[in-house]
Amino acid sequence: MLRDDSGAEVRDAYFVSDSTGITAETLGNALLANFPGARFRRHTVPFVDSVDGARAVIGDLRVSPAGAAPIVFTTVKSAQILAEFHASGAVVIDLLGGHLRELEASLGSAASEQLGQYHGVGDMERYFARMRAVEYAIEHDDGQSMRALDIADVIIIAPSRCGKTPTTMYLALQYGLLVANYPLTDDDFPSDGLPATVERFASKCFGLTTTPLRLSQVRHERRPDTVYSSLAQCTLEIRRAEDLYRRNRVPFLNSSTKSVEEMSAVIMQSMRLRS
Amino acid sequence: MLRDDSGAEVRDAYFVSDSTGITAETLGNALLANFPGARFRRHTVPFVDSVDGARAVIGDLRVSPAGAAPIVFTTVKSAQILAEFHASGAVVIDLLGGHLRELEASLGSAASEQLGQYHGVGDMERYFARMRAVEYAIEHDDGQSMRALDIADVIIIAPSRCGKTPTTMYLALQYGLLVANYPLTDDDFPSDGLPATVERFASKCFGLTTTPLRLSQVRHERRPDTVYSSLAQCTLEIRRAEDLYRRNRVPFLNSSTKSVEEMSAVIMQSMRLRS
Repeated sequence: MLRDDSGAEVRDAYFVSDSTGITAETLGNALLANFPGARFRRHTVPFVDSVDGARAVIGDLRVSPAGAAPIVFTTVKSAQILAEFHASGAVVIDLLGGHLRELEASLGSAASEQLGQYHGVGDMERYFARMRAVEYAIEHDDGQSMRALDIADVIIIAPSRCGKTPTTMYLALQYGLLVANYPLTDDDFPSDGLPATVERFASKCFGLTTTPLRLSQVRHERRPDTVYSSLAQCTLEIRRAEDLYRRNRVPFLNSSTKSVEEMSAVIMQSMRLRS
Repeated sequence: MLRDDSGAEVRDAYFVSDSTGITAETLGNALLANFPGARFRRHTVPFVDSVDGARAVIGDLRVSPAGAAPIVFTTVKSAQILAEFHASGAVVIDLLGGHLRELEASLGSAASEQLGQYHGVGDMERYFARMRAVEYAIEHDDGQSMRALDIADVIIIAPSRCGKTPTTMYLALQYGLLVANYPLTDDDFPSDGLPATVERFASKCFGLTTTPLRLSQVRHERRPDTVYSSLAQCTLEIRRAEDLYRRNRVPFLNSSTKSVEEMSAVIMQSMRLRS
């Protein structure tokens, strides 16, 4: 039996999909997060779309399994493939099957037998939108370009290292939103107004802040033992930024205890960017 | 009753979460994709973490509902909040509840009562890894920098507009991988070898290709009616790129019918970048 450093038992968790594995992984991890005392060795296996593919995975999960029966989280729809996993001795969590039956009952129609239909016109449009959004985000990262700020869906402003860049990229890639971000530096103070570049677009601005300690830690990662990463400088910059947000009625959030996904969700809700 | 342009009945689908809504949205959409004949009006409602919050959503879903009873896909764990939705007349698809019971039985322990515990040390590390990866991807987009290519996890090479940038960003943001991408241009031919810049890192290279027609369409979006977007030029560039991949044993895939997520999954599997 495999144990981790603390002596806790480790179990294998497989995320098995007939497509990318992203849904199985996302939901499987959301479920496992409810068992903070347990330890898992995670495996994602995408593109399992045949009985042979399933048997290869089952062969793998039988070789030196960690702990008790492996847990298989799966979004596979094929009854034949599911039967292979059920017969393997693994604990099978069928993430879609039961819910599909519920939906069939509610909608009064049968679920399609085909695998993920991705490639319609809507998907081509979505692809273009994401591509444009990612390129827009790269062009407008860290105040690099002022071109076409008028078409931005949101302009994220914050001192350096408060999380502008990853949040910008997540909003672009996941939702196809046009997001620019602009750093607040010492040059922007002591003016009471927003930086001249973004002032015209005040209603699109969203601010990020964090705690001085967290900012100092994050900056220390990049440039250890500098004024830039000192607690004094971080405290000053955050106080100034928050004052600026308040004076100019820019909505803002504290990124220190939030994931990129959480920040993105808050920003979309606050700026009414949810469809 | 709301109908779409084709006269099909439209129903409301709500993705309701006590956190970001990403899991509810991902799985809910994966389920709805199995009913290609049905039409849905989608709403994502994050941060529903109180009975009052639930009642606000229920008030909303009762105002001019599209079609029959709305469908609520939810990842909310609170029994009280779930009871509100069950009493509302909506069809409730509880995405986590049943699976949590299955897991409890298999693990022999009860699910934690707390909401999403995100903010441990592991999450801070994951945050740093993603931030570094996104910055690396921006720095190395489209061959802009040759610095630190030796630490890249993968270098994506392809002619312009084959999908390098969004795929790079997805791998960085979702998986914290260090991904550079490098464009194949006319300058790189007629050499038989890989471009000098990436030649030393041949084992890290992964190629993208597409169909000439699709490439021409995508390029036309950017620069209509140019040599660059002509079918002849696209055909030539793709043939050369595929020859280059084959000669240099660079694995490659055709992006024309794949989503960014699918391409990322194939690349990770091919380059053995899955944990």
